[in-house]
Amino acid sequence: MEDARRREVTTVLFEGFEVLDVFGPLEVFGVAGQRFNLTMLGPKAGPVQSAQGPAAVAEVAYRDAPRPDIVLVPGGIGTRRLVTDVTFTEWLAEWAARAEFVTSVCTGSGVLAAAGLLSGYRATSNKRAFAWAREQGPLVDWVPQARWVEDRDRWTSSGVAAGIDMALALVAHLEGDELADAIADGVEHDWHRESNWDPFAAKNGLAPEP
Amino acid sequence: MEDARRREVTTVLFEGFEVLDVFGPLEVFGVAGQRFNLTMLGPKAGPVQSAQGPAAVAEVAYRDAPRPDIVLVPGGIGTRRLVTDVTFTEWLAEWAARAEFVTSVCTGSGVLAAAGLLSGYRATSNKRAFAWAREQGPLVDWVPQARWVEDRDRWTSSGVAAGIDMALALVAHLEGDELADAIADGVEHDWHRESNWDPFAAKNGLAPEP
Repeated sequence: MEDARRREVTTVLFEGFEVLDVFGPLEVFGVAGQRFNLTMLGPKAGPVQSAQGPAAVAEVAYRDAPRPDIVLVPGGIGTRRLVTDVTFTEWLAEWAARAEFVTSVCTGSGVLAAAGLLSGYRATSNKRAFAWAREQGPLVDWVPQARWVEDRDRWTSSGVAAGIDMALALVAHLEGDELADAIADGVEHDWHRESNWDPFAAKNGLAPEP
Repeated sequence: MEDARRREVTTVLFEGFEVLDVFGPLEVFGVAGQRFNLTMLGPKAGPVQSAQGPAAVAEVAYRDAPRPDIVLVPGGIGTRRLVTDVTFTEWLAEWAARAEFVTSVCTGSGVLAAAGLLSGYRATSNKRAFAWAREQGPLVDWVPQARWVEDRDRWTSSGVAAGIDMALALVAHLEGDELADAIADGVEHDWHRESNWDPFAAKNGLAPEP
Protein backbone atom coordinates (compact mmCIF):
# COMPACT_ATOMS: atom_id res chain seq x y z
CA MET A 1 0.00 0.00 0.00
CA GLU A 2 1.29 3.41 -0.87
CA ASP A 3 2.01 5.88 1.86
CA ALA A 4 -0.02 8.70 0.35
CA ARG A 5 -0.65 10.81 3.42
CA ARG A 6 0.40 14.42 3.55
CA ARG A 7 3.05 15.14 6.16
CA GLU A 8 3.07 18.16 8.45
CA VAL A 9 6.44 19.94 8.36
CA THR A 10 6.48 22.16 11.43
CA THR A 11 9.20 24.80 11.75
CA VAL A 12 10.15 26.19 15.14
CA LEU A 13 10.80 29.92 14.73
CA PHE A 14 12.38 32.04 17.47
CA GLU A 15 13.77 35.56 17.64
CA GLY A 16 17.11 35.56 15.79
CA PHE A 17 16.54 32.54 13.53
CA GLU A 18 18.69 32.31 10.38
CA VAL A 19 16.57 32.96 7.29
CA LEU A 20 18.15 30.44 4.89
CA ASP A 21 18.10 27.69 7.56
CA VAL A 22 14.31 27.94 7.41
CA PHE A 23 13.51 28.83 3.84
CA GLY A 24 16.03 26.54 2.11
CA PRO A 25 14.34 23.37 3.43
CA LEU A 26 10.84 24.91 3.20
CA GLU A 27 11.44 25.64 -0.51
CA VAL A 28 12.20 21.93 -1.01
CA PHE A 29 9.20 20.65 0.97
CA GLY A 30 6.98 23.42 -0.38
CA VAL A 31 7.43 22.53 -4.05
CA ALA A 32 7.11 18.77 -3.47
CA GLY A 33 3.73 18.51 -5.12
CA GLN A 34 1.40 18.83 -2.14
CA ARG A 35 3.06 15.97 -0.25
CA PHE A 36 3.94 18.28 2.65
CA ASN A 37 2.03 20.96 4.52
CA LEU A 38 4.12 23.73 6.07
CA THR A 39 3.38 25.31 9.45
CA MET A 40 5.53 27.75 11.38
CA LEU A 41 5.48 28.06 15.17
CA GLY A 42 6.62 30.95 17.33
CA PRO A 43 6.63 31.98 20.99
CA LYS A 44 3.20 33.34 20.08
CA ALA A 45 1.33 33.57 16.78
CA GLY A 46 2.54 36.54 14.73
CA PRO A 47 5.78 38.00 13.35
CA VAL A 48 9.12 36.56 14.49
CA GLN A 49 12.23 38.56 13.63
CA SER A 50 15.16 36.77 12.02
CA ALA A 51 18.86 37.29 12.74
CA GLN A 52 19.11 39.08 9.38
CA GLY A 53 16.28 41.49 10.17
CA PRO A 54 13.25 40.39 8.12
CA ALA A 55 10.38 38.74 9.99
CA ALA A 56 8.37 35.65 9.13
CA VAL A 57 4.93 34.86 10.46
CA ALA A 58 4.31 32.09 12.99
CA GLU A 59 0.78 30.78 12.49
CA VAL A 60 0.65 28.94 15.81
CA ALA A 61 2.15 29.44 19.29
CA TYR A 62 4.46 26.72 20.65
CA ARG A 63 1.93 25.75 23.33
CA ASP A 64 -0.83 25.27 20.73
CA ALA A 65 1.28 23.27 18.27
CA PRO A 66 -0.43 20.23 16.80
CA ARG A 67 1.39 16.92 16.63
CA PRO A 68 4.10 17.21 13.96
CA ASP A 69 5.29 14.68 11.41
CA ILE A 70 8.57 16.44 10.60
CA VAL A 71 10.04 19.00 12.99
CA LEU A 72 12.52 21.56 11.60
CA VAL A 73 14.65 23.54 14.05
CA PRO A 74 16.79 26.22 12.38
CA GLY A 75 19.95 27.82 13.74
CA GLY A 76 20.90 31.45 14.07
CA ILE A 77 22.23 33.70 16.78
CA GLY A 78 18.94 33.34 18.69
CA THR A 79 19.90 29.75 19.58
CA ARG A 80 22.43 31.01 22.13
CA ARG A 81 19.66 32.36 24.36
CA LEU A 82 17.19 29.61 23.48
CA VAL A 83 19.28 26.78 24.97
CA THR A 84 19.14 28.51 28.38
CA ASP A 85 15.33 28.79 28.29
CA VAL A 86 14.23 25.74 30.26
CA THR A 87 10.52 26.34 29.62
CA PHE A 88 11.29 26.20 25.91
CA THR A 89 13.60 23.19 25.95
CA GLU A 90 11.20 21.20 28.12
CA TRP A 91 8.33 22.00 25.74
CA LEU A 92 10.49 21.09 22.70
CA ALA A 93 11.64 17.80 24.26
CA GLU A 94 8.09 16.66 24.87
CA TRP A 95 6.45 17.99 21.71
CA ALA A 96 9.16 16.99 19.20
CA ALA A 97 9.55 13.48 20.63
CA ARG A 98 6.14 12.63 19.12
CA ALA A 99 7.31 13.42 15.56
CA GLU A 100 8.20 10.92 12.87
CA PHE A 101 11.41 12.90 12.13
CA VAL A 102 13.19 15.60 14.10
CA THR A 103 15.51 17.66 11.91
CA SER A 104 17.74 20.68 12.35
CA VAL A 105 19.86 23.03 10.28
CA CYS A 106 23.08 24.67 11.45
CA THR A 107 23.14 25.47 15.19
CA GLY A 108 19.59 24.13 15.46
CA SER A 109 21.28 20.86 16.48
CA GLY A 110 22.60 22.65 19.56
CA VAL A 111 19.00 23.40 20.49
CA LEU A 112 17.96 19.78 19.93
CA ALA A 113 20.94 18.65 22.00
CA ALA A 114 20.08 21.04 24.85
CA ALA A 115 16.57 19.55 24.86
CA GLY A 116 18.06 16.04 25.13
CA LEU A 117 16.66 15.08 21.75
CA LEU A 118 20.03 13.97 20.36
CA SER A 119 21.33 11.96 23.33
CA GLY A 120 22.58 8.64 22.01
CA TYR A 121 22.41 9.85 18.42
CA ARG A 122 25.02 10.80 15.83
CA ALA A 123 24.64 14.43 14.76
CA THR A 124 26.40 17.36 13.10
CA SER A 125 26.18 21.15 13.20
CA ASN A 126 27.54 24.40 11.76
CA LYS A 127 31.31 24.15 11.30
CA ARG A 128 32.04 27.61 12.72
CA ALA A 129 30.02 26.98 15.88
CA PHE A 130 30.86 23.31 16.35
CA ALA A 131 32.44 23.72 19.79
CA TRP A 132 29.31 25.51 21.03
CA ALA A 133 27.07 22.75 19.66
CA ARG A 134 29.21 20.08 21.37
CA GLU A 135 28.79 21.85 24.70
CA GLN A 136 25.02 21.53 24.41
CA GLY A 137 25.10 17.76 24.16
CA PRO A 138 27.77 15.70 25.95
CA LEU A 139 25.78 12.51 25.23
CA VAL A 140 25.68 13.17 21.49
CA ASP A 141 28.07 11.43 19.07
CA TRP A 142 29.09 14.59 17.19
CA VAL A 143 30.31 14.09 13.60
CA PRO A 144 32.60 16.97 12.58
CA GLN A 145 32.80 16.21 8.86
CA ALA A 146 29.37 15.76 7.28
CA ARG A 147 27.00 17.73 5.07
CA TRP A 148 24.28 16.14 7.15
CA VAL A 149 23.92 13.16 9.49
CA GLU A 150 20.91 10.86 9.44
CA ASP A 151 20.57 8.55 12.44
CA ARG A 152 17.20 6.82 12.64
CA ASP A 153 14.59 9.57 13.21
CA ARG A 154 17.06 12.39 13.86
CA TRP A 155 18.47 14.25 10.84
CA THR A 156 20.84 17.16 11.48
CA SER A 157 22.58 19.27 8.86
CA SER A 158 25.70 21.35 8.83
CA GLY A 159 25.56 25.16 8.42
CA VAL A 160 22.86 27.16 6.65
CA ALA A 161 22.93 26.09 2.96
CA ALA A 162 23.45 22.44 3.98
CA GLY A 163 19.81 22.31 5.04
CA ILE A 164 18.74 22.30 1.38
CA ASP A 165 20.78 19.16 0.66
CA MET A 166 19.43 17.43 3.77
CA ALA A 167 15.83 18.31 2.92
CA LEU A 168 16.27 16.83 -0.57
CA ALA A 169 17.73 13.66 0.96
CA LEU A 170 14.76 13.40 3.33
CA VAL A 171 12.31 13.84 0.43
CA ALA A 172 14.20 11.10 -1.44
CA HIS A 173 14.01 8.86 1.65
CA LEU A 174 10.27 9.40 2.05
CA GLU A 175 9.04 9.83 -1.52
CA GLY A 176 11.79 8.47 -3.76
CA ASP A 177 14.75 9.75 -5.75
CA GLU A 178 12.64 10.73 -8.72
CA LEU A 179 10.74 13.42 -6.84
CA ALA A 180 13.87 14.71 -5.10
CA ASP A 181 15.73 14.93 -8.43
CA ALA A 182 12.81 16.78 -10.00
CA ILE A 183 12.76 19.27 -7.12
CA ALA A 184 16.53 19.87 -7.27
CA ASP A 185 16.33 20.48 -11.04
CA GLY A 186 13.22 22.62 -10.69
CA VAL A 187 14.80 24.95 -8.17
CA GLU A 188 18.12 24.82 -10.08
CA HIS A 189 19.99 23.58 -7.04
CA ASP A 190 23.31 21.76 -7.38
CA TRP A 191 22.35 18.99 -4.96
CA HIS A 192 25.17 17.41 -2.94
CA ARG A 193 23.77 13.92 -2.60
CA GLU A 194 26.54 12.49 -0.47
CA SER A 195 26.07 13.18 3.21
CA ASN A 196 29.85 13.04 3.72
CA TRP A 197 30.57 15.83 1.20
CA ASP A 198 31.90 18.60 3.43
CA PRO A 199 34.76 20.88 2.39
CA PHE A 200 33.86 23.27 5.22
CA ALA A 201 35.04 20.96 8.01
CA ALA A 202 38.66 21.26 6.84
CA LYS A 203 38.32 25.04 6.39
CA ASN A 204 37.41 25.24 10.07
CA GLY A 205 40.05 22.86 11.42
CA LEU A 206 37.60 20.01 11.98
CA ALA A 207 39.12 17.67 9.39
CA PRO A 208 42.53 17.29 7.70
CA GLU A 209 43.17 19.60 4.74
CA PRO A 210 42.33 17.69 1.53
CA MET B 1 38.01 57.37 -0.46
CA GLU B 2 36.35 54.21 0.66
CA ASP B 3 32.75 53.61 -0.15
CA ALA B 4 31.70 52.88 3.41
CA ARG B 5 28.01 53.65 3.20
CA ARG B 6 25.41 51.09 4.07
CA ARG B 7 23.24 50.08 1.13
CA GLU B 8 19.49 49.56 1.32
CA VAL B 9 18.48 46.20 -0.13
CA THR B 10 14.75 46.47 -0.78
CA THR B 11 12.80 43.32 -1.61
CA VAL B 12 9.49 43.52 -3.43
CA LEU B 13 7.17 40.92 -1.90
CA PHE B 14 3.83 39.98 -3.47
CA GLU B 15 1.27 37.23 -2.88
CA GLY B 16 2.75 34.00 -4.24
CA PHE B 17 6.46 34.89 -4.05
CA GLU B 18 8.93 32.00 -3.99
CA VAL B 19 10.54 31.70 -0.54
CA LEU B 20 14.08 30.77 -1.57
CA ASP B 21 14.18 33.50 -4.24
CA VAL B 22 13.88 35.99 -1.39
CA PHE B 23 15.72 34.40 1.51
CA GLY B 24 18.69 33.00 -0.42
CA PRO B 25 19.92 36.47 -1.43
CA LEU B 26 18.80 38.04 1.87
CA GLU B 27 20.91 35.50 3.76
CA VAL B 28 23.94 36.65 1.76
CA PHE B 29 23.29 40.38 2.19
CA GLY B 30 22.15 39.88 5.79
CA VAL B 31 25.38 38.30 7.01
CA ALA B 32 27.63 40.75 5.17
CA GLY B 33 28.78 42.50 8.30
CA GLN B 34 26.34 45.42 8.46
CA ARG B 35 27.12 46.60 4.95
CA PHE B 36 23.51 46.14 3.87
CA ASN B 37 20.20 46.99 5.47
CA LEU B 38 17.24 44.79 4.49
CA THR B 39 13.73 46.09 3.95
CA MET B 40 10.75 44.20 2.55
CA LEU B 41 7.87 45.87 0.71
CA GLY B 42 4.37 44.58 0.12
CA PRO B 43 1.07 45.77 -1.34
CA LYS B 44 0.54 47.06 2.19
CA ALA B 45 2.60 46.73 5.37
CA GLY B 46 1.99 43.33 7.01
CA PRO B 47 2.11 39.63 6.17
CA VAL B 48 2.50 38.54 2.55
CA GLN B 49 1.86 34.89 1.76
CA SER B 50 4.43 32.96 -0.28
CA ALA B 51 3.76 30.41 -3.02
CA GLN B 52 4.86 27.71 -0.55
CA GLY B 53 2.43 28.83 2.17
CA PRO B 54 4.49 30.60 4.86
CA ALA B 55 4.19 34.37 5.09
CA ALA B 56 6.87 37.02 5.50
CA VAL B 57 6.32 40.51 6.83
CA ALA B 58 6.48 43.58 4.60
CA GLU B 59 7.56 46.54 6.73
CA VAL B 60 6.54 49.16 4.17
CA ALA B 61 3.83 49.47 1.49
CA TYR B 62 4.92 49.90 -2.13
CA ARG B 63 3.60 53.47 -2.25
CA ASP B 64 5.62 54.45 0.84
CA ALA B 65 8.88 52.83 -0.25
CA PRO B 66 11.98 54.92 0.29
CA ARG B 67 14.56 55.27 -2.46
CA PRO B 68 16.36 51.92 -2.79
CA ASP B 69 20.01 51.20 -3.46
CA ILE B 70 19.51 47.57 -4.49
CA VAL B 71 16.10 46.32 -5.59
CA LEU B 72 15.39 42.58 -5.38
CA VAL B 73 12.38 41.18 -7.25
CA PRO B 74 11.77 37.47 -6.60
CA GLY B 75 9.85 35.03 -8.77
CA GLY B 76 7.09 32.62 -7.90
CA ILE B 77 3.66 31.78 -9.22
CA GLY B 78 2.41 35.21 -8.12
CA THR B 79 4.38 36.82 -10.95
CA ARG B 80 1.83 35.57 -13.49
CA ARG B 81 -0.84 37.90 -12.10
CA LEU B 82 1.60 40.68 -11.21
CA VAL B 83 2.69 41.36 -14.81
CA THR B 84 -0.95 42.18 -15.71
CA ASP B 85 -1.30 44.69 -12.85
CA VAL B 86 -0.57 48.01 -14.58
CA THR B 87 -0.75 50.02 -11.36
CA PHE B 88 1.99 47.79 -9.97
CA THR B 89 4.24 47.74 -13.05
CA GLU B 90 3.99 51.52 -13.45
CA TRP B 91 4.92 52.00 -9.80
CA LEU B 92 7.82 49.52 -10.11
CA ALA B 93 9.13 51.14 -13.31
CA GLU B 94 9.33 54.55 -11.68
CA TRP B 95 10.50 53.52 -8.22
CA ALA B 96 13.13 50.93 -9.25
CA ALA B 97 14.63 53.16 -11.94
CA ARG B 98 16.13 55.31 -9.16
CA ALA B 99 18.11 52.37 -7.70
CA GLU B 100 21.82 51.76 -8.06
CA PHE B 101 21.12 48.11 -8.98
CA VAL B 102 17.91 46.37 -10.01
CA THR B 103 18.11 42.62 -9.47
CA SER B 104 15.78 39.67 -9.86
CA VAL B 105 15.69 35.96 -9.13
CA CYS B 106 13.88 33.37 -11.24
CA THR B 107 10.68 34.67 -12.90
CA GLY B 108 11.24 38.03 -11.20
CA SER B 109 12.95 39.01 -14.45
CA GLY B 110 9.60 38.59 -16.20
CA VAL B 111 8.21 41.20 -13.81
CA LEU B 112 11.12 43.56 -14.48
CA ALA B 113 10.64 43.00 -18.23
CA ALA B 114 6.90 43.72 -18.00
CA ALA B 115 7.74 46.99 -16.26
CA GLY B 116 10.13 47.89 -19.11
CA LEU B 117 13.11 47.78 -16.77
CA LEU B 118 15.07 45.31 -18.91
CA SER B 119 14.49 46.84 -22.36
CA GLY B 120 17.85 47.05 -24.09
CA TYR B 121 19.49 44.85 -21.47
CA ARG B 122 20.78 41.28 -21.47
CA ALA B 123 18.92 39.15 -18.93
CA THR B 124 18.10 35.59 -17.89
CA SER B 125 15.32 33.81 -16.01
CA ASN B 126 14.09 30.48 -14.65
CA LYS B 127 14.80 27.71 -17.17
CA ARG B 128 11.40 26.06 -16.81
CA ALA B 129 9.52 29.33 -17.38
CA PHE B 130 11.84 30.85 -19.95
CA ALA B 131 9.22 31.14 -22.70
CA TRP B 132 6.92 33.02 -20.31
CA ALA B 133 9.71 35.40 -19.32
CA ARG B 134 10.52 36.07 -22.99
CA GLU B 135 6.92 37.04 -23.64
CA GLN B 136 7.12 39.74 -20.99
CA GLY B 137 9.99 41.54 -22.70
CA PRO B 138 10.35 41.56 -26.50
CA LEU B 139 13.00 44.29 -26.22
CA VAL B 140 15.16 42.24 -23.83
CA ASP B 141 18.21 40.31 -25.03
CA TRP B 142 17.35 37.05 -23.25
CA VAL B 143 20.29 34.75 -22.44
CA PRO B 144 19.09 31.12 -22.15
CA GLN B 145 22.26 29.64 -20.66
CA ALA B 146 23.48 31.57 -17.62
CA ARG B 147 23.49 31.18 -13.84
CA TRP B 148 23.01 34.92 -13.79
CA VAL B 149 23.47 37.84 -16.20
CA GLU B 150 24.98 41.16 -15.16
CA ASP B 151 24.51 44.02 -17.61
CA ARG B 152 25.40 47.40 -16.16
CA ASP B 153 22.90 48.10 -13.34
CA ARG B 154 20.57 45.18 -14.10
CA TRP B 155 21.45 41.77 -12.60
CA THR B 156 19.07 38.88 -13.23
CA SER B 157 19.50 35.31 -12.05
CA SER B 158 18.22 31.98 -13.24
CA GLY B 159 15.79 29.92 -11.13
CA VAL B 160 15.45 29.95 -7.35
CA ALA B 161 18.80 28.72 -5.93
CA ALA B 162 20.71 30.74 -8.56
CA GLY B 163 19.85 33.90 -6.63
CA ILE B 164 22.36 32.93 -3.93
CA ASP B 165 25.22 32.77 -6.45
CA MET B 166 24.19 36.11 -7.99
CA ALA B 167 23.96 37.81 -4.60
CA LEU B 168 27.49 36.61 -3.74
CA ALA B 169 28.74 37.96 -7.08
CA LEU B 170 27.10 41.32 -6.38
CA VAL B 171 28.68 41.46 -2.91
CA ALA B 172 32.06 40.65 -4.52
CA HIS B 173 31.48 43.42 -7.09
CA LEU B 174 30.60 46.00 -4.42
CA GLU B 175 32.73 44.96 -1.46
CA GLY B 176 35.42 42.65 -2.83
CA ASP B 177 36.06 38.95 -3.23
CA GLU B 178 37.34 38.52 0.30
CA LEU B 179 33.99 39.36 1.88
CA ALA B 180 32.03 37.29 -0.64
CA ASP B 181 34.31 34.28 -0.05
CA ALA B 182 33.93 34.65 3.70
CA ILE B 183 30.14 34.75 3.38
CA ALA B 184 30.03 31.68 1.11
CA ASP B 185 32.24 29.73 3.54
CA GLY B 186 30.30 30.98 6.55
CA VAL B 187 26.95 29.84 5.19
CA GLU B 188 28.58 26.65 3.82
CA HIS B 189 27.44 27.40 0.30
CA ASP B 190 29.16 25.82 -2.70
CA TRP B 191 29.38 29.09 -4.64
CA HIS B 192 29.23 28.87 -8.42
CA ARG B 193 31.40 31.83 -9.28
CA GLU B 194 31.08 31.62 -13.04
CA SER B 195 27.98 33.32 -14.35
CA ASN B 196 27.94 30.96 -17.35
CA TRP B 197 27.76 27.79 -15.17
CA ASP B 198 24.31 26.47 -16.00
CA PRO B 199 23.56 22.76 -16.37
CA PHE B 200 19.84 23.48 -16.12
CA ALA B 201 19.59 25.17 -19.53
CA ALA B 202 20.40 21.89 -21.31
CA LYS B 203 18.01 19.96 -19.04
CA ASN B 204 15.24 22.23 -20.27
CA GLY B 205 16.15 22.21 -23.97
CA LEU B 206 17.63 25.72 -23.90
CA ALA B 207 21.20 24.62 -24.68
CA PRO B 208 22.83 21.59 -26.34
CA GLU B 209 23.31 18.53 -24.12
CA PRO B 210 26.85 18.60 -22.71
